[in-house]
Amino acid sequence: MTPQRVTLITLGVADLVRAKAFYGALGWTPEEETPGVVFYDLGGMKLGFFGLDPLAADQGRPGAQLGTGAMSLAQNFPDRAAVDAAFAQAEAAGATVLKRPEAVFWGGYSGYYADPDGHVWELAHNPFWALDSDGRLKAASE
Amino acid sequence: MTPQRVTLITLGVADLVRAKAFYGALGWTPEEETPGVVFYDLGGMKLGFFGLDPLAADQGRPGAQLGTGAMSLAQNFPDRAAVDAAFAQAEAAGATVLKRPEAVFWGGYSGYYADPDGHVWELAHNPFWALDSDGRLKAASE
Repeated sequence: MTPQRVTLITLGVADLVRAKAFYGALGWTPEEETPGVVFYDLGGMKLGFFGLDPLAADQGRPGAQLGTGAMSLAQNFPDRAAVDAAFAQAEAAGATVLKRPEAVFWGGYSGYYADPDGHVWELAHNPFWALDSDGRLKAASE
Repeated sequence: MTPQRVTLITLGVADLVRAKAFYGALGWTPEEETPGVVFYDLGGMKLGFFGLDPLAADQGRPGAQLGTGAMSLAQNFPDRAAVDAAFAQAEAAGATVLKRPEAVFWGGYSGYYADPDGHVWELAHNPFWALDSDGRLKAASE
């Protein structure tokens, strides 16, 4: 009834132009734009930007101060060098560095940054998780 | 360099047992569990739970109060009845209702709820976005 699936991630943003510029500097291309909303195709799902205030209203709580940080998005890479390269690209695009990529306790390699609205991204290489040729994570059973 | 892709969504939670119970009541089955972390396979990506304090520390900002709400996750459904059914299931599981499913300005049908940690889910039917047989969103060009 409730699928084990996410089809859209919406990021509330204070400034749509700034958000588009940041993700554009990472090489992302919008798929669909309407006034006040931008969508990116992520392959089987989408990521969208929506103003913070309109998002609070859309969620049924107009005027609410929405917070960030307790939900982070991650990108897995095939090796450490790819993590470093993407992290440098984000930093050049104006990301706030939270933790530079380093070897971590679970046996991988990971760094964190925040985008201009405080949304947190983790860039990681996890030697225990396999990626397919499209860059998707394989299920443990695959 | 930075793929247009999300491979992992991590939800910071105050109580891992409570979080597992809530998503379990929606029918979700963990794929991988280690002390303090639970992962679910979402098909090409994973969703994980991690304690709020450990998440703040992992992000490189120990002690930070992480906020929720400005990043919402959505599930798209093939019709309105499927939205209603999943919404009722979430409410029965203890979700906080933010906005009951209703016809919305962009031509779809959408409701919002918050999970026990304040993470926001949108359940929607969007007549303009096609789903494939696996429940993934098709790209606009497909």
